[in-house]
Amino acid sequence: MRRLYHFALSPHCRKVRLALKEKALDFELAPIEPWAADPDFLVLNPAGEVPVLVEDDGTVLAESQAICEYLDEAYPDRPLIGFDPVHRAETRRLVAWFDLRFHADVTNYLVGEKVIKRLKGEGYPESAVIRAGQHNIRYHLDYVSFLSERRNWLAGEEFSLADIAASAQIACVDYLGAIPWDDFPLARDWYARIKSRPTFRSLLADQVRGLPPPKHYADLDF
Amino acid sequence: MRRLYHFALSPHCRKVRLALKEKALDFELAPIEPWAADPDFLVLNPAGEVPVLVEDDGTVLAESQAICEYLDEAYPDRPLIGFDPVHRAETRRLVAWFDLRFHADVTNYLVGEKVIKRLKGEGYPESAVIRAGQHNIRYHLDYVSFLSERRNWLAGEEFSLADIAASAQIACVDYLGAIPWDDFPLARDWYARIKSRPTFRSLLADQVRGLPPPKHYADLDF
Repeated sequence: MRRLYHFALSPHCRKVRLALKEKALDFELAPIEPWAADPDFLVLNPAGEVPVLVEDDGTVLAESQAICEYLDEAYPDRPLIGFDPVHRAETRRLVAWFDLRFHADVTNYLVGEKVIKRLKGEGYPESAVIRAGQHNIRYHLDYVSFLSERRNWLAGEEFSLADIAASAQIACVDYLGAIPWDDFPLARDWYARIKSRPTFRSLLADQVRGLPPPKHYADLDF
Repeated sequence: MRRLYHFALSPHCRKVRLALKEKALDFELAPIEPWAADPDFLVLNPAGEVPVLVEDDGTVLAESQAICEYLDEAYPDRPLIGFDPVHRAETRRLVAWFDLRFHADVTNYLVGEKVIKRLKGEGYPESAVIRAGQHNIRYHLDYVSFLSERRNWLAGEEFSLADIAASAQIACVDYLGAIPWDDFPLARDWYARIKSRPTFRSLLADQVRGLPPPKHYADLDF
């Protein structure tokens, strides 16, 4: 069975999980705490990071965007990046926006302080870091609103890896109850459409030990 | 004429310049200091980052990997990513390694402290940050050595975007004279082969105002 090494609140792992689900590919999940630096895991990925995907034939793939590009090439039936080169560049620009920028500005601060620091036993969250993440999220929700007012989905008319990358980040932050949905109705409408996709269900069932999500997290009408 | 908005010591810009050269595509360079947040430039890329490529027909492309993937799709004659999906995934894994990891561990510390801080008028370099970059570089040169001992080029038998991404980072650090070449003969051999490619010449001619490169920087026999 195809196996995905992942951490439940890693947005880059969630991105790959969603891509696999959208392509209707079977897989099993192998949970990893990447900061544990397990030597067996470092053989699979010398970067020591999740996600890592191992195919049935033993082929090892690492790094979330390399994995998603691979999935779109190896299993082209339900394309997730687009068709012509310019549109594909726009999808990839937005994927990088959320994978790198949103992650550095928001997810890394909030999930890093509130979850990973605790799991690593590194003490209490710093309120200045959390405030920075909560401040930055408004800029990104504005950008999601701007895009979803002008396009059916974030990168254009079709649902794409841009929607997957964005919702993977946002779902991690929403697990902490940190999204000010009431102030961003357009972004909420877009996320409600993602949440109602059957492919999104397994993410909404995730639980991190000792940290249950808020009530609205799995609610389709939030 | 195709135009690339760039900053001379941005490794991600150098990556796109090398890809354009390898594909024998004409372009002109438009220098940008991205921290100046020029409103005209923000219209081209709301992220405010270089590189941005504007095609002859006005098509705007932003984010270095999105641009390189676009170039490989729009101008497929000299492919830079590979042929089969698994090999392409390995190229992309290594591109991300250098674009993200090497950049965060090394280039951002060294170029950030020694060059960008000065150009922004933010004072003197902090020696602790520089030491961290100089410490981390050894790990990455070990990895380049490991790969180039086992493969003709970093991602396999063919020269690829992985070599481009790696040499783009290393060239920026080498401009500061910060690469301990004597300790890494395998990495030096690999870099000497890149430096001798005609496509690499224009990078070696770059000068940053007030900061000339060391003598060996443009030397093919270093």
